[in-house]
Amino acid sequence: MLYDPSQKYQPHPPIHLPDRQWPNKQLTHAPRWLSTDLRDGNQALADPMDGLRKLRFWELLLQCGFKEIEVAFPSASETDFQFVRQLIEERRIPHDVTIQVLTQARTDLIERTFAALEGASRATLHLYNATAPLFRRLVFRQSKEEIIQLAVSATRQIRALCEANPQTQWSYEYSPETFCFTESDFALQICEAVADVWEPCCERPMIINLPATVEVNTPNVYADQIEYFCRHFSRRNAVCISVHPHNDRGSGVASAELAILAGADRVEGCLFGNGERTGNVCLVTMAMNLYSQGVSPQLDFSDIKHVVEEVEQCNQLPVHPRHPYAGKLAFTAFSGSHQDAIKKGFTARQQSSSPLWEMPYLPVDPNDIGCSYEAVIRVNSQSGKSGAAWILEQNHGLVLPRGLQQDFSRHVQEQTDRDGNEMTLNALWQLFRKLYGPHQLADRQLLEYRSESQTEGGLSLQARVQTPEGILTLQGKGNGLLSATADALKSQFKVAFSIEDYHEHTLGRHSESRSAAYIRCTFANGESCWGVGIDNDVARASLQALLNALPIKSSN
Amino acid sequence: MLYDPSQKYQPHPPIHLPDRQWPNKQLTHAPRWLSTDLRDGNQALADPMDGLRKLRFWELLLQCGFKEIEVAFPSASETDFQFVRQLIEERRIPHDVTIQVLTQARTDLIERTFAALEGASRATLHLYNATAPLFRRLVFRQSKEEIIQLAVSATRQIRALCEANPQTQWSYEYSPETFCFTESDFALQICEAVADVWEPCCERPMIINLPATVEVNTPNVYADQIEYFCRHFSRRNAVCISVHPHNDRGSGVASAELAILAGADRVEGCLFGNGERTGNVCLVTMAMNLYSQGVSPQLDFSDIKHVVEEVEQCNQLPVHPRHPYAGKLAFTAFSGSHQDAIKKGFTARQQSSSPLWEMPYLPVDPNDIGCSYEAVIRVNSQSGKSGAAWILEQNHGLVLPRGLQQDFSRHVQEQTDRDGNEMTLNALWQLFRKLYGPHQLADRQLLEYRSESQTEGGLSLQARVQTPEGILTLQGKGNGLLSATADALKSQFKVAFSIEDYHEHTLGRHSESRSAAYIRCTFANGESCWGVGIDNDVARASLQALLNALPIKSSN
Repeated sequence: MLYDPSQKYQPHPPIHLPDRQWPNKQLTHAPRWLSTDLRDGNQALADPMDGLRKLRFWELLLQCGFKEIEVAFPSASETDFQFVRQLIEERRIPHDVTIQVLTQARTDLIERTFAALEGASRATLHLYNATAPLFRRLVFRQSKEEIIQLAVSATRQIRALCEANPQTQWSYEYSPETFCFTESDFALQICEAVADVWEPCCERPMIINLPATVEVNTPNVYADQIEYFCRHFSRRNAVCISVHPHNDRGSGVASAELAILAGADRVEGCLFGNGERTGNVCLVTMAMNLYSQGVSPQLDFSDIKHVVEEVEQCNQLPVHPRHPYAGKLAFTAFSGSHQDAIKKGFTARQQSSSPLWEMPYLPVDPNDIGCSYEAVIRVNSQSGKSGAAWILEQNHGLVLPRGLQQDFSRHVQEQTDRDGNEMTLNALWQLFRKLYGPHQLADRQLLEYRSESQTEGGLSLQARVQTPEGILTLQGKGNGLLSATADALKSQFKVAFSIEDYHEHTLGRHSESRSAAYIRCTFANGESCWGVGIDNDVARASLQALLNALPIKSSN
Repeated sequence: MLYDPSQKYQPHPPIHLPDRQWPNKQLTHAPRWLSTDLRDGNQALADPMDGLRKLRFWELLLQCGFKEIEVAFPSASETDFQFVRQLIEERRIPHDVTIQVLTQARTDLIERTFAALEGASRATLHLYNATAPLFRRLVFRQSKEEIIQLAVSATRQIRALCEANPQTQWSYEYSPETFCFTESDFALQICEAVADVWEPCCERPMIINLPATVEVNTPNVYADQIEYFCRHFSRRNAVCISVHPHNDRGSGVASAELAILAGADRVEGCLFGNGERTGNVCLVTMAMNLYSQGVSPQLDFSDIKHVVEEVEQCNQLPVHPRHPYAGKLAFTAFSGSHQDAIKKGFTARQQSSSPLWEMPYLPVDPNDIGCSYEAVIRVNSQSGKSGAAWILEQNHGLVLPRGLQQDFSRHVQEQTDRDGNEMTLNALWQLFRKLYGPHQLADRQLLEYRSESQTEGGLSLQARVQTPEGILTLQGKGNGLLSATADALKSQFKVAFSIEDYHEHTLGRHSESRSAAYIRCTFANGESCWGVGIDNDVARASLQALLNALPIKSSN
């Protein structure tokens, strides 16, 4: 029997809006962003930031390009009050950045809030009160009329204090809390009443913020509520409509995006979704989502690793490895078919002149957020032939022929299946060298060779090879260098084989002047072996590859 | 200048569906669930699970109530192949559970897949091939016709093998990859062609799975695509429509939920959103979202901590502290106004007979997922008076009078502002005892008292009190016990005060027989102090509270 207390819950009813327009819209421009990391994010930390950590976070937000930053709840905490004073007195606020502070609707708290802001060039005063029926009934035991009166008289006090302090450019934000389960018409009614007092206009900017402080429905319902509000609010063109979604149902990002489709102008949230309980909407994800749709987010996360490090330091909370765009695993492909597709995508990209990013499984170019391609593909027992080949190509410049990819992949899978672990770059490289001996580790090291090409078409070769047993002198004849070497090896080792596959290429950007050669020999019993040689001289690389292909290796 | 390469990206075009119906729908029942933790989740781990970890995860999935579990990609890994064999040979699959395995469309891989399944009672064979234009062009260089042929001939082979092995109850799943950026009409065309070969019916069940293997648009676009598919697929009633969303834009949950509104019957995902890159959709969040809407998810997460621990062990990846429903902070309130509302909500709940869960900021009763109320409210510098009071009530049964809440809160805030840390339960309790001395730690400990009530209404009291300086004998007279004690203390300590506030209550469930008394004394200079006493005897509790209220304390 399943434990199932679902009867004790009931859904919040959606609103009736059959002619909704938002599902026909697309995201075409960035919203106004407000970071509330220093307020909503901060108050949700087990150990809230001290002044130093707050300042560090503040600097980071400026670097990322935020122009509106909620910095504190000054009447609720002495640390918060002092932080606002510090920003103002130390002139740390750039001329194009507006700080915002939160206050409750109480006379003494509003006065204390204005005291914190004294001397600011620009500031947004953010008032909230509870409007949802659950809060009216359980928490405040107030009628709708009393709730409206509370908001209206606080707004009156705030407007008077703004007018008494004209040295600051004031903006006013009002939040009916929690909008998403307040009756839509009551939310309209209280916002109309507040706006009637504030009288929004160019000189008196106003933000109506419609929070989903607790996410209680699928995100399309929130979008309906926002569209309904935008269509019915009488001063729609005089105000900025802002949203403030949380993430209780794991849909904070979707709620914010659909709300923008529905008409919202502005989003409040935190980096990496910090905030009370399950967090505020993640502004990094939202911004990067725009980015990958060809829309400039007007925020800069080009060094995402730095942003992650700073935020982890300040919040003392981790960013999850699978966090979109920012997690350590966000761009990583372990599976064979994904790796294969990405590898082909990169090859096509190298050969193409299109400026567009088109890459299987990678919605954003890792380079654009300061991450390397090397980290994209990693190899474990779930990886196919492409993964290991990609890593050798990216790190060593080796472009393995298809047959060698398959051969190497078999050995890699045997090892990962046996060990159960991811194979590191170094482990892959060591295995490759052990199997195909491309470097000085080879059992037989070509020391020097002399070849003589005869006019009648034949070539004779003499070579000296270092082996574990001492120096060997080889002599052979053939049509060319390789066949002469093969001839010499056949007679030396008394083994019959033929060269089935031969590839070579110069090593690209990694070391301009060297060449890699790949040779497959097939023996009388049908088995075949690959060898790889790398040398400054193309000919030496092939001879060494042939020496390495012969399966007679020392015990080392 | 912001770094802004957004021009190199372009959005995937949405489809035209102005008469969409899904936004008018609500979630009213649970979908069929498939866990792909052991396949899609597993292949995305740096260190994929070995047989033991897979078995542990398998047992967990059964406990949670999953009836469809994708267990492996047997043709891609020896570990996976052996795991399927183990489940079958050790008879570990309950009769009502169907295992599912994935295969690519290659003859030898399909044969190997059937070899893995030999002897299973029930199994779902899951075939996928790439259908999206990016894959057709870059990865496979195949025409639409060739892509269809690949799927059709693989399906023909699979049907033949199923019919050759009638001892297993077969089900067939086909995934056009990646559905969400395949042309909608081509997705329909290839699924029709595949279904024409399989001929779905009761005896030959079929699942059409429409993956968003990479999330590339807002979730409403995916819902439009699903609704379009459901409305146009000719065999709609003969097949189960499944979705398989990933989380690249942080909207996996929303994509799945809106897809269900749009007509999907089934969801594939992983616990806590494990899976390639940013992960698959989180099935825990989806299930609990249904739960909080009054819909039974048909899955059991009543002991969520156990599920978190097991999954963290198996995946070797953390569940984020803010993960919906499951993270350590998912139900935690630090902010004062949130704490206040929750405290009032719990009080109202105790007094109410309604079976419905209505609680500010807590969409789900923590008890329903095996979490305690104690962890809900935690205290730091952002907390108001309610938080500390709540903790004392929950853990010590003390219901502080409002005035004492305010007094204690001031001291708590001073300490948290100074230390910058969260206050633990123990630190709060120590501070409370130090300030108000409710227990044996008090500077003055009432040893014994004798009172004599006279017929004319007066009372005389004699009491012995242990102090740091030795035993003190008090004597006083008054109208009652308290006033006589006050009289005795005034003359003993030469101090003038009046008792302004007096409250007492029995300690509820925590220790049935004891009482707590709270007393506020006001002194001549206007200052006032609280004292708290706890004793089996109501009278002793009040006397001790009064002793504790006097501010003359020893240096200890």
